[in-house]
Amino acid sequence: MEISIKKTMTPKVKPDERSLVFGHEFTDHMFIMDYAEGKGWHDPRIVPYGPLSLDPSTMVLHYAQETFEGLKAYKTAKGDVQLFRAKDNIARLNQSNERVCIPTLCEEDVMQAIKTIVKVDEDWIPEAQGTSLYIRPFVIATDPFIGVKTSSTFKFMIILSPVGAYYKEGLNPTRIYVEEHYVRAVSGGTGQAKTGGNYAASLKAQVEAAQKGYSQVLWLDGIERKYVEEVGTSNAFFKVDEKIYTAPLEGTILSGITRDTSLKLLKSWGIDVIEERFTIQQVYDWHTQGRLKEAFATGTAAVISPIGAFGWKGEDLIINNNEIGQISQKLYDTITQIQIGQLEDSFNWITVVN
Amino acid sequence: MEISIKKTMTPKVKPDERSLVFGHEFTDHMFIMDYAEGKGWHDPRIVPYGPLSLDPSTMVLHYAQETFEGLKAYKTAKGDVQLFRAKDNIARLNQSNERVCIPTLCEEDVMQAIKTIVKVDEDWIPEAQGTSLYIRPFVIATDPFIGVKTSSTFKFMIILSPVGAYYKEGLNPTRIYVEEHYVRAVSGGTGQAKTGGNYAASLKAQVEAAQKGYSQVLWLDGIERKYVEEVGTSNAFFKVDEKIYTAPLEGTILSGITRDTSLKLLKSWGIDVIEERFTIQQVYDWHTQGRLKEAFATGTAAVISPIGAFGWKGEDLIINNNEIGQISQKLYDTITQIQIGQLEDSFNWITVVN
Repeated sequence: MEISIKKTMTPKVKPDERSLVFGHEFTDHMFIMDYAEGKGWHDPRIVPYGPLSLDPSTMVLHYAQETFEGLKAYKTAKGDVQLFRAKDNIARLNQSNERVCIPTLCEEDVMQAIKTIVKVDEDWIPEAQGTSLYIRPFVIATDPFIGVKTSSTFKFMIILSPVGAYYKEGLNPTRIYVEEHYVRAVSGGTGQAKTGGNYAASLKAQVEAAQKGYSQVLWLDGIERKYVEEVGTSNAFFKVDEKIYTAPLEGTILSGITRDTSLKLLKSWGIDVIEERFTIQQVYDWHTQGRLKEAFATGTAAVISPIGAFGWKGEDLIINNNEIGQISQKLYDTITQIQIGQLEDSFNWITVVN
Repeated sequence: MEISIKKTMTPKVKPDERSLVFGHEFTDHMFIMDYAEGKGWHDPRIVPYGPLSLDPSTMVLHYAQETFEGLKAYKTAKGDVQLFRAKDNIARLNQSNERVCIPTLCEEDVMQAIKTIVKVDEDWIPEAQGTSLYIRPFVIATDPFIGVKTSSTFKFMIILSPVGAYYKEGLNPTRIYVEEHYVRAVSGGTGQAKTGGNYAASLKAQVEAAQKGYSQVLWLDGIERKYVEEVGTSNAFFKVDEKIYTAPLEGTILSGITRDTSLKLLKSWGIDVIEERFTIQQVYDWHTQGRLKEAFATGTAAVISPIGAFGWKGEDLIINNNEIGQISQKLYDTITQIQIGQLEDSFNWITVVN
């Protein structure tokens, strides 16, 4: 794939690395490629970051035919730029695309596009501890048409945002509300896809949980309303005795990359990992029996987010004395050190950019 | 509310009324109003129809925080312009907004906005039989931010499209595939809201049904996968003996305006209407017993769409010899005649625009 590159004439002032927040600042350039029926994906280009001109009837604004991914680039101590598990994110983007009838992308082309845009905006990769360059590939349906059908034109784009730690206060236990009214996903729906509608559907529960003093919700399954699924936009893990439990991938749960990273690391440490359905009542019982030692959420943005308490039926289940658990800390340290090249990449997760 | 109006200097050539299709052509102007936290909805204006300038990080493109409505304006034989059930559409827009954390709109202001933009583009209302001016109010989240949260800024817009009959071939029985794999909605989700994610989620089933030779799908409930819910983006009705059955509004089904219109008309004609859950097996049994006389779908775009066959488990259930049923035809004729002022508006459904 030949990517045309048009550099900006007016580079922006870069933000202070010590005060980066998540997702507000974007770099000088963006990648765009168009799709048209009969023509396929075409015209890959890097251009100065700037607004899109979209007809008000553009399908994505009405019918949410849209997918996205999130991954990160890091600068190592040696000055190399590296991506973490980029191949897996790219594969998942295509899985999401298939679910909502967006034409799939050539995965090698997407990798090349990510590498090229990251290289062009390399100076934007922050180097302070906990920072990285967040990479947001996404696809939107662009037909100017308001009938309900799959679009015949799309845009695939990549934008970049230098980010600090997801939680300003750093690795700190969060309070999670067990959501029993709203449902995130059901089998046969789009729960396993990174598509906008899942996130819009989740906002109401998030807002109501915040009003009750919780930072996120624990989603239960949509059918029996009792099986543990996800935490907010992350996967959920529970340490019970010496074993780790997480919900299995059965079509309603996003196949988290950090979920998979955590599972592989835990297994490599000789820890038993159980991917089976379990209920919120089971979690409650484990807690009552003193067997629930830790809980944490995994996701690209925050990596590992320890859970300090679950609010369920008017009661707060305090986990691990509201302190960061050993496993949570070890996973966080290991993953972030692999990401920045301080630990060996024995799983072949790193892609070096040039 | 004071709406500023800036007229176009370059009016478009209007399309031929005889060859109008649905949703491709838009009028000369559009309505826009902005929302900002702390400021509320502000700056209502009518401006020449044209593209929006949206940052690539705009939340609606990633997290689908978006809602919409669809209603129609008609020109009567006397030359009056009238809206059909506009108050109900506006109320439903606010219900959708609440579900996905979009700030509600003042319903009187929305009515004023619709009336004003329709008046400004009055010359665009087609007059040929079966045509109308489709009105698309919609709201999009506009924060340039890629964290998952509810946006703090929004745009409410209204665009207008002169439309012909939804089905080019006119009122003709359609073939409907009973969908047993994909699910549209589940209780606790967003099924009752007109929000983009529901439509993106439905595309895959629609595409696969088309490949099998069906024009739409019949959705079953997401939990037991047996109760009849909707047809495509419409509500479904079944005439069994002399009674009419339709699924009840229990949180997964869109509260269709044409559904409600049909229910009120049927009751006024002394026909028994039953809003209770029934299974696809029940529909099959009614058909086998020779008791299923008609089936049809209701929606704003197509008004009434007779169903000629259901494909279920490899079998086609032919309804009413694949002909338009009496009730379908009578509902279609009555509703469209009320809409264009040829029949008395005894239910107070019409809003006259000046």
